[in-house]
Amino acid sequence: VLILALDTATEQGSLALVEDDRPLLEYTLSSAGTYLSRLLPAVAELLAAAGREPAELQAIGVSIGPGNFTGLRIGCATAKALAWSLNCPLVPVPAMEVLAAQLPFQAQPIGVVLDAKRNEAFWGLYRCPADRPQVLAEAVRLPLAELSGRLRPPLILTGFLESLIPLLSDAGILLAPPELRRPRAAILARLAGLRLAAGLTASPQQLVPTYLRPPL
Amino acid sequence: VLILALDTATEQGSLALVEDDRPLLEYTLSSAGTYLSRLLPAVAELLAAAGREPAELQAIGVSIGPGNFTGLRIGCATAKALAWSLNCPLVPVPAMEVLAAQLPFQAQPIGVVLDAKRNEAFWGLYRCPADRPQVLAEAVRLPLAELSGRLRPPLILTGFLESLIPLLSDAGILLAPPELRRPRAAILARLAGLRLAAGLTASPQQLVPTYLRPPL
Repeated sequence: VLILALDTATEQGSLALVEDDRPLLEYTLSSAGTYLSRLLPAVAELLAAAGREPAELQAIGVSIGPGNFTGLRIGCATAKALAWSLNCPLVPVPAMEVLAAQLPFQAQPIGVVLDAKRNEAFWGLYRCPADRPQVLAEAVRLPLAELSGRLRPPLILTGFLESLIPLLSDAGILLAPPELRRPRAAILARLAGLRLAAGLTASPQQLVPTYLRPPL
Repeated sequence: VLILALDTATEQGSLALVEDDRPLLEYTLSSAGTYLSRLLPAVAELLAAAGREPAELQAIGVSIGPGNFTGLRIGCATAKALAWSLNCPLVPVPAMEVLAAQLPFQAQPIGVVLDAKRNEAFWGLYRCPADRPQVLAEAVRLPLAELSGRLRPPLILTGFLESLIPLLSDAGILLAPPELRRPRAAILARLAGLRLAAGLTASPQQLVPTYLRPPL
């Protein structure tokens, strides 16, 4: 199965082309403010570099958040339009699972934090004892002031949370290295492949991101 | 410190631009056969997409293998020429450490396997209890027939080893997920930053890759 995966849930976007379990190509794309003008050209470039045609795509995987509103809207709109036009399955994947899956074979829980702006954070708790994440606590939105109360060792902390790191200096908490704290679309594609096999697809006409907050 | 990192030790190349500990952009580049025509344009594209000039680069990190001969030659030649021309430090990083560093916070040893062609493999043993790899056994080249004798649990196995997977079906061995088995230049850049801070740079005029085999 040839899967195109888009992750624009954070300010560091990622897109990848994965065939069966073989990652073919993967690009990062910064930042959220330029996704509208840069995401579709990057998709075209990725396919061209891999020598593939859009019609060969067999599924579109997309991060549904929570995360950056602008990024999620553009990523989901693009993925929905591609899946509808190419008549292939659309597979939504929770943003935090893409991050937790980057830390396999871990006995301790993995906490995922994303910046929700306005002094709030998105927070979810996972474990990844083998190569796929399990949900311990679904993503929620909470005030930054409540975040430190959630950080109890043993815990590995990850997420695109650069602005929050000064708040997260608890002893005994392991902070994932910076390059493992960003979403990777190649991982999203693998999780999308598992969901596709389980029939967990979405309607291109109806999918909405997980905002976890009323839109402005 | 703004670091450009190139990893062409396998058939799946990777290049990244990292500033201090912040990964700015990262691209994959397939395959070894096209590195000569595609690596330098990809470097130019990476810098342009990040809005940076070549003169702003403060170090060049490069994978020195072992690995794919063609890839290592082109990657090292490119990195050496860039470092020399831009008059910035050149930081060599062992290919296998880039792969082991992708599996942090692991108690068990990490075995890295790379295809050495001609029925041989490159093999090295590491551990990564925190966020940087430690060498348990330096990379060696050995016949494929001897490889299975090295695989003793507990062990996490990684590396760009797709053609070898059928040979590696030992019970009790954890195989890293496919998208974590490929070199990532953003990780190489972080390791290069640590080596740069420790003064572990190389002369652009003298660096040669770790072939572990007399060239043809």
